[in-house]
Amino acid sequence: MINKVFISVIGESHASPEIAKLAEEVGAEIGKAGAVLVCGGLKGVMENAAKGAKSAGGTTIGILPGSKREDSNPYIDYPIITGIGYARNKLVVKTGHVVIAVGGSHGTLSEIAFALGYKIPVVGLRTWQIIHHSGIVDHNINYVTTAKEAVEAAIKLAKAAGKPEEVKEYHS
Amino acid sequence: MINKVFISVIGESHASPEIAKLAEEVGAEIGKAGAVLVCGGLKGVMENAAKGAKSAGGTTIGILPGSKREDSNPYIDYPIITGIGYARNKLVVKTGHVVIAVGGSHGTLSEIAFALGYKIPVVGLRTWQIIHHSGIVDHNINYVTTAKEAVEAAIKLAKAAGKPEEVKEYHS
Amino acid sequence: MINKVFISVIGESHASPEIAKLAEEVGAEIGKAGAVLVCGGLKGVMENAAKGAKSAGGTTIGILPGSKREDSNPYIDYPIITGIGYARNKLVVKTGHVVIAVGGSHGTLSEIAFALGYKIPVVGLRTWQIIHHSGIVDHNINYVTTAKEAVEAAIKLAKAAGKPEEVKEYHS
Amino acid sequence: MINKVFISVIGESHASPEIAKLAEEVGAEIGKAGAVLVCGGLKGVMENAAKGAKSAGGTTIGILPGSKREDSNPYIDYPIITGIGYARNKLVVKTGHVVIAVGGSHGTLSEIAFALGYKIPVVGLRTWQIIHHSGIVDHNINYVTTAKEAVEAAIKLAKAAGKPEEVKEYHS
Repeated sequence: MINKVFISVIGESHASPEIAKLAEEVGAEIGKAGAVLVCGGLKGVMENAAKGAKSAGGTTIGILPGSKREDSNPYIDYPIITGIGYARNKLVVKTGHVVIAVGGSHGTLSEIAFALGYKIPVVGLRTWQIIHHSGIVDHNINYVTTAKEAVEAAIKLAKAAGKPEEVKEYHS
Repeated sequence: MINKVFISVIGESHASPEIAKLAEEVGAEIGKAGAVLVCGGLKGVMENAAKGAKSAGGTTIGILPGSKREDSNPYIDYPIITGIGYARNKLVVKTGHVVIAVGGSHGTLSEIAFALGYKIPVVGLRTWQIIHHSGIVDHNINYVTTAKEAVEAAIKLAKAAGKPEEVKEYHS
Repeated sequence: MINKVFISVIGESHASPEIAKLAEEVGAEIGKAGAVLVCGGLKGVMENAAKGAKSAGGTTIGILPGSKREDSNPYIDYPIITGIGYARNKLVVKTGHVVIAVGGSHGTLSEIAFALGYKIPVVGLRTWQIIHHSGIVDHNINYVTTAKEAVEAAIKLAKAAGKPEEVKEYHS
Repeated sequence: MINKVFISVIGESHASPEIAKLAEEVGAEIGKAGAVLVCGGLKGVMENAAKGAKSAGGTTIGILPGSKREDSNPYIDYPIITGIGYARNKLVVKTGHVVIAVGGSHGTLSEIAFALGYKIPVVGLRTWQIIHHSGIVDHNINYVTTAKEAVEAAIKLAKAAGKPEEVKEYHS
């Protein structure tokens, strides 16, 4: 049983107006649903989503790559200062029960890949499509078209997964 | 100007009753002061401090070394799942404006060392003493004897420091 | 001017016989070319490539996710013990002047994504295809069909790039 | 049975002439002994030790905190580019079967602490002394006074330890 759902929102730091709007709507839906928004703490989709969450009374965590607290966008309640660069992408993914990708550049793709590897569910909104070397499109991304659908799917997947952290890392 | 003070409490995962009591008092003072408690999220000092903070209505962040959310002690509001082992000690230190060490084993010593290296202020309660190879005792740890003094000193140091994250990491 | 070229070979830990053969050939070409092979140090493509490199008198580095030296495959000269789980994928990528992806699962995809984000050249042998949310296939992967072509392309790209590490990480 | 001994040499990046000389001698002894020198790859003790190792025909690995290969000192054969800042201190320690501390600032202290926590043997040459909060001096550092003694002790400890990586990290 999950008491509080943590949803990681990932996406590019330079978002088009359309993607920015979508990210803000995703954040607002997360806030309304009483879930906690986790993101990378910087600009673009991260800022738009955090802004949306705060506008709906939600709570936001930003896992920053750098060492400066000031890099955090103004909608982050709890900045986590990692100083490990983009190795922090793994932490953004793991801290969520589920991931929502909105648009996205190569950093976002690394996060989608980490999530799929860890068997953390991924919901996709206008994001990457990936084709395995066998020629088959990877069907592990749950594509939806609206912010509302994204958050509904995310919460459902988080609850169904229960323990998304069960995939063992090779570091015993 | 710091809006909200983040205080990292570090210490051993197997605490004596005396150290445990001290950690809980530190957490309670942090909660009363309206600061956010950051810790490693596990047992011992981390759990005692988080328990104290929650008893005083505070907010707690636990930066976990492993990949399992369930490793989090029950007093953590926001578990950060890093999966990077004790490399996360650096993150615990950096996420605070200031660090309070309560007792402590070798892991705690690594955190004190990181904090001193980053010029993040350290308050010490029955913790390590360190002697430089020049033979001089390192005076950068601010030793106090009660939980109340520790949190008062921590908040004062955090505000005086302003931007403890100014020390540049060698990763430009 | 690059004195010694470091080539990171990435790919799945459970390789089909065909992919395994290709990886071994890639390793052998790297060894013959006098370049240093960098990989994740484990089984599958990592082991096959390291085996090929050693058979050709080359040098091999394995950047292990876990804490056990024994996880290293027997063809690794220099095991780097990270204990940071798959956050080490970033290190595998950065340690090479160039990356060759052979086959690959989600971990490999995270490495391709990191490389593209850092503008480290990527050569692909039967690996992922990725389609941006704009609908455009990402043309930053240099697809080839033989091991010989892969290593020739890799060395050429490494020398042309010169300083692939110029992309700044957000951690100043 | 250890085939090849990996010795991590740690110490400050701004070394006094006396410490620098000692570090270079340590490196030379490591080279003569046929062991592999691991270090942080930068200046000061790291550079002096690597220089010593190369002068004796040894092999050197530098685990760099930053993203720039050029930060590597000129005596490093195999630079590992981590881009995770001083979180890489853990990797420097883990990659060695044993650690030799020469002089040292706060970064070195964090490495000593990590090594002690992981039960990796530590040999100390004019380095930190640490006093536990119980008031007892920590006797886990093996202090010696010459470079020759340091490397002899290190190799003996490495072989006796056998598997220093047996201490489990909390990241299953």
